[in-house]
Amino acid sequence: MSHAVNTPVPAQPLHTIGTAAHRPDALDKVSGRELFVGDLAFPRMLHGIVVRATEPHARIIAVHTGAARRMPGVAAVLTARDIPGENCVPVVFRDQPCLAAKVVRYVGEPVALVAADTPEHARRAAAAVRIEYEPLDAVFDPLVARRHATVRIFGEDNVFKHLDVVKGDTAHAFSQCDVIVENTFHTPAQEHAYLETQGMIAVPQPGGVMQVLGSMQCPFYVREAVSAVLGIPLAAAQITQTTTGGAFGGKEDVPSLPAVQAALLAHATRRPVKVIYSRDEDIICTSKRHPAVIRSKYGAKRDGTLVAAEIEYAINGGAYATLSPIVLFRGIVHAVGPYRCPHVRVSGDAVATNTVPNGAFRGFGSPQVIFAAERQMDELARKLGISPVDLRRKNLLREGDRTATNQLLTSSVGAVETLEKALERFEATSQISNVNCQMSDDKWSVKRGTGLSTIFYGVGLGAGGQRLARAGATIDITEDGSVAFAVGTTEIGQGMKTVLSQITAESLGVPLDRVRMLPTDTTRVPDSGPTVASRATTMSGRALQNAAEVLRERLLAAAAAKLNAPPARLALRNGVVLIDGAAAGISFDELLDECREQRIPLSAAGWHHPRSLEFDWQSCQGDAYVVYAFATNIAEVEVDTRTGEVRVLRIISAHDVGKAVNPQLVEGQIEGGTLQGLGYALFEEIVTGDGRIRNPQFSTYIIPTACDAPEIVPVIVEHAYPDGPFGAKGFGEQPLMGIAPAVVNAVCNALGISLFDLPATPERVWQAVQPQGVRAC
Amino acid sequence: MSHAVNTPVPAQPLHTIGTAAHRPDALDKVSGRELFVGDLAFPRMLHGIVVRATEPHARIIAVHTGAARRMPGVAAVLTARDIPGENCVPVVFRDQPCLAAKVVRYVGEPVALVAADTPEHARRAAAAVRIEYEPLDAVFDPLVARRHATVRIFGEDNVFKHLDVVKGDTAHAFSQCDVIVENTFHTPAQEHAYLETQGMIAVPQPGGVMQVLGSMQCPFYVREAVSAVLGIPLAAAQITQTTTGGAFGGKEDVPSLPAVQAALLAHATRRPVKVIYSRDEDIICTSKRHPAVIRSKYGAKRDGTLVAAEIEYAINGGAYATLSPIVLFRGIVHAVGPYRCPHVRVSGDAVATNTVPNGAFRGFGSPQVIFAAERQMDELARKLGISPVDLRRKNLLREGDRTATNQLLTSSVGAVETLEKALERFEATSQISNVNCQMSDDKWSVKRGTGLSTIFYGVGLGAGGQRLARAGATIDITEDGSVAFAVGTTEIGQGMKTVLSQITAESLGVPLDRVRMLPTDTTRVPDSGPTVASRATTMSGRALQNAAEVLRERLLAAAAAKLNAPPARLALRNGVVLIDGAAAGISFDELLDECREQRIPLSAAGWHHPRSLEFDWQSCQGDAYVVYAFATNIAEVEVDTRTGEVRVLRIISAHDVGKAVNPQLVEGQIEGGTLQGLGYALFEEIVTGDGRIRNPQFSTYIIPTACDAPEIVPVIVEHAYPDGPFGAKGFGEQPLMGIAPAVVNAVCNALGISLFDLPATPERVWQAVQPQGVRAC
Repeated sequence: MSHAVNTPVPAQPLHTIGTAAHRPDALDKVSGRELFVGDLAFPRMLHGIVVRATEPHARIIAVHTGAARRMPGVAAVLTARDIPGENCVPVVFRDQPCLAAKVVRYVGEPVALVAADTPEHARRAAAAVRIEYEPLDAVFDPLVARRHATVRIFGEDNVFKHLDVVKGDTAHAFSQCDVIVENTFHTPAQEHAYLETQGMIAVPQPGGVMQVLGSMQCPFYVREAVSAVLGIPLAAAQITQTTTGGAFGGKEDVPSLPAVQAALLAHATRRPVKVIYSRDEDIICTSKRHPAVIRSKYGAKRDGTLVAAEIEYAINGGAYATLSPIVLFRGIVHAVGPYRCPHVRVSGDAVATNTVPNGAFRGFGSPQVIFAAERQMDELARKLGISPVDLRRKNLLREGDRTATNQLLTSSVGAVETLEKALERFEATSQISNVNCQMSDDKWSVKRGTGLSTIFYGVGLGAGGQRLARAGATIDITEDGSVAFAVGTTEIGQGMKTVLSQITAESLGVPLDRVRMLPTDTTRVPDSGPTVASRATTMSGRALQNAAEVLRERLLAAAAAKLNAPPARLALRNGVVLIDGAAAGISFDELLDECREQRIPLSAAGWHHPRSLEFDWQSCQGDAYVVYAFATNIAEVEVDTRTGEVRVLRIISAHDVGKAVNPQLVEGQIEGGTLQGLGYALFEEIVTGDGRIRNPQFSTYIIPTACDAPEIVPVIVEHAYPDGPFGAKGFGEQPLMGIAPAVVNAVCNALGISLFDLPATPERVWQAVQPQGVRAC
Repeated sequence: MSHAVNTPVPAQPLHTIGTAAHRPDALDKVSGRELFVGDLAFPRMLHGIVVRATEPHARIIAVHTGAARRMPGVAAVLTARDIPGENCVPVVFRDQPCLAAKVVRYVGEPVALVAADTPEHARRAAAAVRIEYEPLDAVFDPLVARRHATVRIFGEDNVFKHLDVVKGDTAHAFSQCDVIVENTFHTPAQEHAYLETQGMIAVPQPGGVMQVLGSMQCPFYVREAVSAVLGIPLAAAQITQTTTGGAFGGKEDVPSLPAVQAALLAHATRRPVKVIYSRDEDIICTSKRHPAVIRSKYGAKRDGTLVAAEIEYAINGGAYATLSPIVLFRGIVHAVGPYRCPHVRVSGDAVATNTVPNGAFRGFGSPQVIFAAERQMDELARKLGISPVDLRRKNLLREGDRTATNQLLTSSVGAVETLEKALERFEATSQISNVNCQMSDDKWSVKRGTGLSTIFYGVGLGAGGQRLARAGATIDITEDGSVAFAVGTTEIGQGMKTVLSQITAESLGVPLDRVRMLPTDTTRVPDSGPTVASRATTMSGRALQNAAEVLRERLLAAAAAKLNAPPARLALRNGVVLIDGAAAGISFDELLDECREQRIPLSAAGWHHPRSLEFDWQSCQGDAYVVYAFATNIAEVEVDTRTGEVRVLRIISAHDVGKAVNPQLVEGQIEGGTLQGLGYALFEEIVTGDGRIRNPQFSTYIIPTACDAPEIVPVIVEHAYPDGPFGAKGFGEQPLMGIAPAVVNAVCNALGISLFDLPATPERVWQAVQPQGVRAC
């Protein structure tokens, strides 16, 4: 750790930004040393189990808990009446009860809680709780539920949220179009399939404090829920993230449920209580990607100029609102894709039904509309007789253009470059067309096809979550020069810990190996909003830079005094003090000594919030997001026309990330997101009947494996975002989003067919190529 | 939590400073709900036991661990060779090994460590470790050890530290004195007798981090030790204080030992390891108050004017330096007491011997010299024929006076007022004299006597620990207005949590019940120095005020914008916004909403360090401490001349605390300190033989019980310290310090005798009143 005086400066000053720094958590994770919530235990800890509704919609007549209470090892059986605070898990609205009191609205809804000395005792007691129901009519289809005459799930019309984008005059514009395509698309529920299921441990602490530890994305959401349900101040709810084994949005709002379940049992028993969901429980009872119906009408001039788009977007919110209003917002903003389009009308509904509440999932309402938009672009290209590439090239957003919400894009617009770079890598761009891949005569053969998608993605919370768009951070340089920092966002496998360590090291001018991230805990930094919307790197990164700036100033002032030189001539880089770019002759450790001697604190808090967005909610016109990321995906597929089976050969995935703080992690995200997108494209489908999920196992809910992985070619494009750390924009979600349309466009290209529904299962593809053309879904 | 608009302001605006606010930790502690380190457990946790030296001084020939390794349940047996970092527990010097490698220097010194699945298995295996010794000559008396011809314990002369105070010309001054008294005093080792013994749990965390949780005063000391011994960066050692069941200085430096012991075993086994000392182990192996020999010569004019003092102060540091150099510093600074004395020579030695290392204990080297000084004042008064009260009144320090280190006292000098207020309470001041309490003719009767002491105490670390004299704090106001704050100092039963909560609430202008202190942990705030030297209230209090000021400014700026009024006209008090002192018409919650809307962070870090002290170490002249607290104690005793037994009837204890943030806690400190001082005065004595402690149980080491408690009359005097929070100065140690001299002066007064040694056990008192006057010790 010690630096000799006159350390020679490396010829190339070392930087960590832009390098493939190793993940500090990698070795512990692959060696099994990392501890997850399931690995933790506390003295006298009990195990909690949730008693769940078996009816999709019913009045509760009675909950009989007497038998359960008398079961061996049982410490508590709780119902809605035992909640000391508010019977509500707050998200956007306060409509979701913690425990159903009078009505259950979906199969799996929590009704009672049991704590016992062992998981087995808890399970047996939970099975002994008897719920008496009076069934009510249930609806599962959002188009049926919306304004249903008799079934009331939410409000007067079962609509959680309605939003309209109105730009220009579509009615008139369509009359001026040469070509119009109009189609309806269906996308399915998708399961997050994180490796680690939901789990929480609540530990009563002295002083009336309830600590809850567990797997989560958003500790401050959990804090609000625990505070509300227990009726304690926010400062008395301490939420600590444990190492989280995957999240993908599924640990945004949902963890509030196991957290308050554990907290209620811990509060009642005054003992630690662990609640871990089993895999089938997790699949049945936690949110999915919203199933959606998208009706889409596009109009263009003969030359391919996009003129008008009208889109109706209905998402199935399930029984409670959770994040549906914001998911809907993101969907309508992205519905037209990254294209200039002067006349737009998007009408969106988030609808209540008697399914499990749907919520956050990587992409957050965008993958559904992006699938429709990019399929529409190919349909339009086919109808126009233009190559899909040229159609996109013509209409793609460039600097100075305006989005569908009329937002002027002033910088960091890499859409065209992602397209061109992806095409370069593809080598044979001419193959991407809808003309040279007609189905061959031998329809029982394997066909090859190529598909394309170009997408954009608003980074951060945007106008829909502006109040939460801020983040805090702290940095402490200890006396030996090692550095600990804390942020309010979470490492959920995405690599935030690595990237923020790099940003901290670079900003302070110290070597990366000196830097350590502290576990995220609500008592370490002020409410920094959720870890969602690809915002962690930009928001926490900027907050860290803000804190680092304070510390650099203090260190350089001390150096300036020692060297009798103005601070402006000094710099810190990789642990070396530089004057006019050369070694200054004092070591970093001497600087630390000097600050210690003068009792100058080398600890600082940082804060960041992005610029305020002007947005009109009547017409949804204005600045929806501070900046957008862009991507182009090219998929090459083989389709076995005998079975309808699709094999994805290659995905070229080009992303404008502003700045790749760690290119290896960007590539990792591209690889992971591509696989998850491929599942969405081809395999993944929650099967329901009577409001019950029928495939709550990974043997029946099929996700891609290594065998399904195509060759993935990541391409990094960097159009710096001026307000991002070192120019970086958020990126975590984007790799998934363009995969399904590229793959399905490739399948359509291979077979000369049109598919409108996800996933493109062998059954659907096979049916589509039958002579009669019977639609599969 | 919600405040209506136009909330009427209470006629008397509510303040919490100066009120007897309840301790937030009281209910959990008295109800047994509070968790101590002994109550904690972690999955797969092992139990560690220390194998200790049985010789006071010996060369280690070999440590045989084979048999122990083969014992049931054993996971690790470690010796000095297994230490990955430095074999050193750093305190002031780096002389103390973590595990003795070649030589043991005291009975109880750690030689090996054992971890096993149960405490019993660990104990059995520890017993099976065999250490081969070659005995060396041992010395236990500091006057013998100092410059011993052959026995080498530390350096060339066995002197850890030598310090001289040289003010004026004592040799000449004594020649001008009318009266001189010269005596030698002995004070014993004192055991801290905290309720909770030393205990730590080390928990290996991912990323190479070692977390250590346990009972301690100084987490940053423990961090330094764990970092050194494991060879890891400071930022990779996370130290968390658990609720601490008493400390009194005994958990300043000592906890580094169980911490590194647990950490080494946890590092070796990669499992959590708990090390809890048993009571006898704790008494045998942990530091005590330094036994001391004080030779003291005082000279005065006939009118009682103190002219010269020469003091030789030798403390037995034991086998390693630990804090002895700083203990010595505090002793020599306070050696003359709170009196003007133009000619002073103090010569101090901290000497190495083959006893357990002695270290920090409430008062920190002062109670020894204060006992001597106050006995000397009574001896001088007797010889002068002046009342002890008048002698003190004449010489006590006042504003504008200079101390023995020639420090000019400019403010907050309440010495005289404590004397006068104590005398007022005593009512019959005339009884305090050395003339009217001659031993009565009936020497087999019970005699009554009264004794006095006036003392001072330098608050904080002073010139001897200036680099560490700083503190950080953070405050976070959450969205519901509840407040969490963190500091680097510790609640050790002294009430810091309560007092700092009051300071935070008052500084922010919010009700006290909104405020919560977070557990102290090295990763929450920058190194804030130790919780010692009565510094927690002043240092952390000022750091909190610093953070609160930032937040108040932000809140008032928001209020000013809303009210269109300059911030200077606005104030926050008890959760109400005031304009020109009247309710402003907006609630605190509205202010919070406004800040949230504008994304203004309501979290801030604070920092404080006191003014720098100029001090010359050659002559020990200059500013030794930033400020001093003062006290007067009056003791009334009954002595049974047949048995020598002393019964303390009443203690009047008047303290200048600057400002009593919580008068009830001040009174509680006075009561507790009085009892502990009473034990030091009358009962407590570590009995040793051949360097072995012979009374390591509370059945043989006698501490006061409720039955021994006199009537205690606390008197609070407030001479505000301008640099203290709301004027407060440190105070935690002072209540103990003046008790022994007041009580022994009272015994001497009752019997007309002179006692020079502590404790004044029945045996010593009885022998002193025998006609032959045989000295007892």
